[in-house]
Amino acid sequence: MKLVTIDDIDAAARRIATDVVRTPLLPARWADPHRPLWLKPENLQPVGAFKIRGAFNALGTLAADVRAAGVVTYSSGNHAQAVAYAAAAYGVAAHIVMPEDTPAVKVQATRAHGVHVVLCGAGQRESVAAELVQQTGGVLVPPFDHPDVIAGQGTVGLEIAQDLAEVAAVLVPISGGGLASGVGTAIRARCPQATVFGVEPELAADTAESLAAGHLVDWPVARRNRTIADGLRATPSELTFAHLQRVIDEVITVSEVEIRSAVRELAERAHLVAEPSGAVALAGYRKAATPPGPTVVVVSGGNIASGLLAEILAG
Amino acid sequence: MKLVTIDDIDAAARRIATDVVRTPLLPARWADPHRPLWLKPENLQPVGAFKIRGAFNALGTLAADVRAAGVVTYSSGNHAQAVAYAAAAYGVAAHIVMPEDTPAVKVQATRAHGVHVVLCGAGQRESVAAELVQQTGGVLVPPFDHPDVIAGQGTVGLEIAQDLAEVAAVLVPISGGGLASGVGTAIRARCPQATVFGVEPELAADTAESLAAGHLVDWPVARRNRTIADGLRATPSELTFAHLQRVIDEVITVSEVEIRSAVRELAERAHLVAEPSGAVALAGYRKAATPPGPTVVVVSGGNIASGLLAEILAG
Repeated sequence: MKLVTIDDIDAAARRIATDVVRTPLLPARWADPHRPLWLKPENLQPVGAFKIRGAFNALGTLAADVRAAGVVTYSSGNHAQAVAYAAAAYGVAAHIVMPEDTPAVKVQATRAHGVHVVLCGAGQRESVAAELVQQTGGVLVPPFDHPDVIAGQGTVGLEIAQDLAEVAAVLVPISGGGLASGVGTAIRARCPQATVFGVEPELAADTAESLAAGHLVDWPVARRNRTIADGLRATPSELTFAHLQRVIDEVITVSEVEIRSAVRELAERAHLVAEPSGAVALAGYRKAATPPGPTVVVVSGGNIASGLLAEILAG
Repeated sequence: MKLVTIDDIDAAARRIATDVVRTPLLPARWADPHRPLWLKPENLQPVGAFKIRGAFNALGTLAADVRAAGVVTYSSGNHAQAVAYAAAAYGVAAHIVMPEDTPAVKVQATRAHGVHVVLCGAGQRESVAAELVQQTGGVLVPPFDHPDVIAGQGTVGLEIAQDLAEVAAVLVPISGGGLASGVGTAIRARCPQATVFGVEPELAADTAESLAAGHLVDWPVARRNRTIADGLRATPSELTFAHLQRVIDEVITVSEVEIRSAVRELAERAHLVAEPSGAVALAGYRKAATPPGPTVVVVSGGNIASGLLAEILAG
């Protein structure tokens, strides 16, 4: 299996430079002084998540005549918005398959980009997307199971390496594994001294179990769906798992209470609105004895319902 | 009266470059397409506000032996934290005078920097600070009435000009006027085509009235204190007013409801936690018919009590 390389990630960075926000590293001065902390605020991207990087890289790599036929994808939310946004920027049609239980805030935000949203039952999204590819002739841009998507997400790691070359630890959420695969690949190549941690909810810790077992372990959708971190309910593909085995040193798992606490900490101390999935890496930093030295936590997304954020802040 | 120049602001930018976050311009794609909007998120600075720029420039300009005697200031909050933070970075003592009615979140955050906080009655803070200067031999770093502070805040405008040279309108909150003076000076010099708007709460619209009258009009503290925007209750000095007369084209005033709505919009759409004072410029953009073309709103601070943010989000 051919894995994504640092050259692929470098090329992605050049390809998407004018389409995404070059997020700064924000010093989190209130954190553990032995593990000085920086936040990589990908919740500040136009669609509120790092997913825009992979989407623009995947669309940008397509030949113009292929891209003109439009794109199709499936996603629980942030990748959907990212593909919708990138398709609009390129002026091509997009069909987005979303599970029926996707938070309304994400369905609305996706539709706002002027794309076709097709809702489907749990576990049906990949097959429905395949049908749409047949019907429309569009190109499938999967949420993580594609080298161009992984390379795009890896630009997060490239920027960390550029801004903090002496980084000792990087913490990144794991779901389907596109972000963790890309960031891990970039950090391995540019900051070989750093330890790369994946972070998962305890209630969706399929990757922790898979990496320990040395092969993909199936957690049924209903089991993964228990976590509040709705962006972390996917499971790696063969492609992302092969990356994760190579580039992730350790997986930290965090409780639902720890995730909520991290959402609150980000709002109160960093002035960032993070969705639960976007806060798990900070929860991992708080929970685990990561190595001393400069540490970066990737705040991967910010699309949280206002009611939930209000509840967490009032709590 | 000698006014701050673009050269002073350029020098400040070099002086503080390693101390502050180089905040990006965040595209706010959901805004009016005829007035494409970017946010300058100064709430992401280490102390949660632009004030760190003026504080580091003022301390950095002092001769080392003068600085060693320590610094004194008075502030309703964000400037206090900024001076405390900068004094700690320079390893010098700081005495901070704060009004008794300052939100607890700001008092605590200031004390956390290991400085001496002296609480005082409304309207007493300047005289108490003067006493502390006498007692300690420290240097007064006022919140806005000083050229080095104005020049430091002006670096916000310099960065806007660097990142979006074709800007058509810049909206910035006005309180004591340090930020507006500095940003206006930088924009006038580097983007002469742009219109510079100050934004004030209707309940603290002393500067709107003063600029219309052509001289400083006194609004009693109790009158200015009615607004929820607790960072905008100060009134310009002769020095900042002279700048504002020269560099502010128009003042927009906004209601308390409009300020709350902007806090909510920033959290929901931009994933930024802004305090009411930090959201007024967006409220001004929503309210007024600013010119067509690229527009920048300065989100000046993020230090809001969680309970208030929860209330606004639940509202």
